[in-house]
Amino acid sequence: MHYQQLLKIPTKGKSLYKITSKIESVVAESGIKTGLCTIFLRHTSASLIIQENADPDVLLDLSNFLAKLVPESAPYIHNAEGPDDMPAHIRTVLTHTSEQIPIAQNRLVLGTWQGIYIWEHRDRSHQRELVVHIMGE
Amino acid sequence: MHYQQLLKIPTKGKSLYKITSKIESVVAESGIKTGLCTIFLRHTSASLIIQENADPDVLLDLSNFLAKLVPESAPYIHNAEGPDDMPAHIRTVLTHTSEQIPIAQNRLVLGTWQGIYIWEHRDRSHQRELVVHIMGE
Amino acid sequence: MHYQQLLKIPTKGKSLYKITSKIESVVAESGIKTGLCTIFLRHTSASLIIQENADPDVLLDLSNFLAKLVPESAPYIHNAEGPDDMPAHIRTVLTHTSEQIPIAQNRLVLGTWQGIYIWEHRDRSHQRELVVHIMGE
Repeated sequence: MHYQQLLKIPTKGKSLYKITSKIESVVAESGIKTGLCTIFLRHTSASLIIQENADPDVLLDLSNFLAKLVPESAPYIHNAEGPDDMPAHIRTVLTHTSEQIPIAQNRLVLGTWQGIYIWEHRDRSHQRELVVHIMGE
Repeated sequence: MHYQQLLKIPTKGKSLYKITSKIESVVAESGIKTGLCTIFLRHTSASLIIQENADPDVLLDLSNFLAKLVPESAPYIHNAEGPDDMPAHIRTVLTHTSEQIPIAQNRLVLGTWQGIYIWEHRDRSHQRELVVHIMGE
Repeated sequence: MHYQQLLKIPTKGKSLYKITSKIESVVAESGIKTGLCTIFLRHTSASLIIQENADPDVLLDLSNFLAKLVPESAPYIHNAEGPDDMPAHIRTVLTHTSEQIPIAQNRLVLGTWQGIYIWEHRDRSHQRELVVHIMGE
């Protein structure tokens, strides 16, 4: 059985937005007991990661690291939309556009410390579209 | 239903090669309406990414960034095949060996600006093998 | 058909641990001829990669590169568990929490040079949990 849902997630500038419970809800609605959940982000300047869900300092350190690794001050050829434009594409490539998580007993098999996040890499507000695809039995 | 196809993609040195339409063709041939498409690259010195399909300057900036982040001039232990050898492995690890894209209405649910690329990290010409696996109904 | 198995992999400090044969065994046990294998790591300070399975120097160069790219000497806010704590999270984000490999003729379609590795980013010993999810027919 295949179950698909489109989620729209509003973001307000560069940050990590936790979406674990939203994805868990879709899994619950699907009724699928054993299977695989795929989360696909339909954008090239925002990304997905699975990371520590407890200490918010981890998210801050992650953001600081990526900001330094892919600086907005560097000279980019593609800069029509401002200094946060090209770094957003690069930061997306270095992280993930989709995540896959198995399902057991109608729940994601996430570890105790794992949360699912959308990582917004642009400054202005966006409505980000996410396709959740669940298959199983 | 499972549908699998092996694609062979010729590459001519370091560059990003767009393969979106090739993958869309396999999806169309599969006849699968709702499902999941997995693209798997059978190599360790080339990778896959999903990125901006409009402005070629984005691809140029991506290549420049990765060239600088993983320099060929650094001292590597593994260098039997030349200075582009080990950087190719590292660049592969920092990007992706497979990509997963849900299918709806017999089409990939890519966003407007998303294209699928093989990123060749070696200098000489290669024939790269790609397994496209589609499952659905 | 869906087949799922939990593997526990002991790690002894920062290193790359090859798990290809362990995953191949699960695929063989599943009996699935054509399908998709997903490997999911239930942790945020260790990761998965698919890389060169022949020359161990590649693994050494990979470790050296990531150690330099994400230094333990940098000032991190989250450092309760020691200097290897936050770098482990960042190194996980820059690599992968899951890998997907199609199956044909009851075998992973890995290329000749591809091996599957758990990359342990912490210093002390761990028992790492891996969910292998196989679906197919």
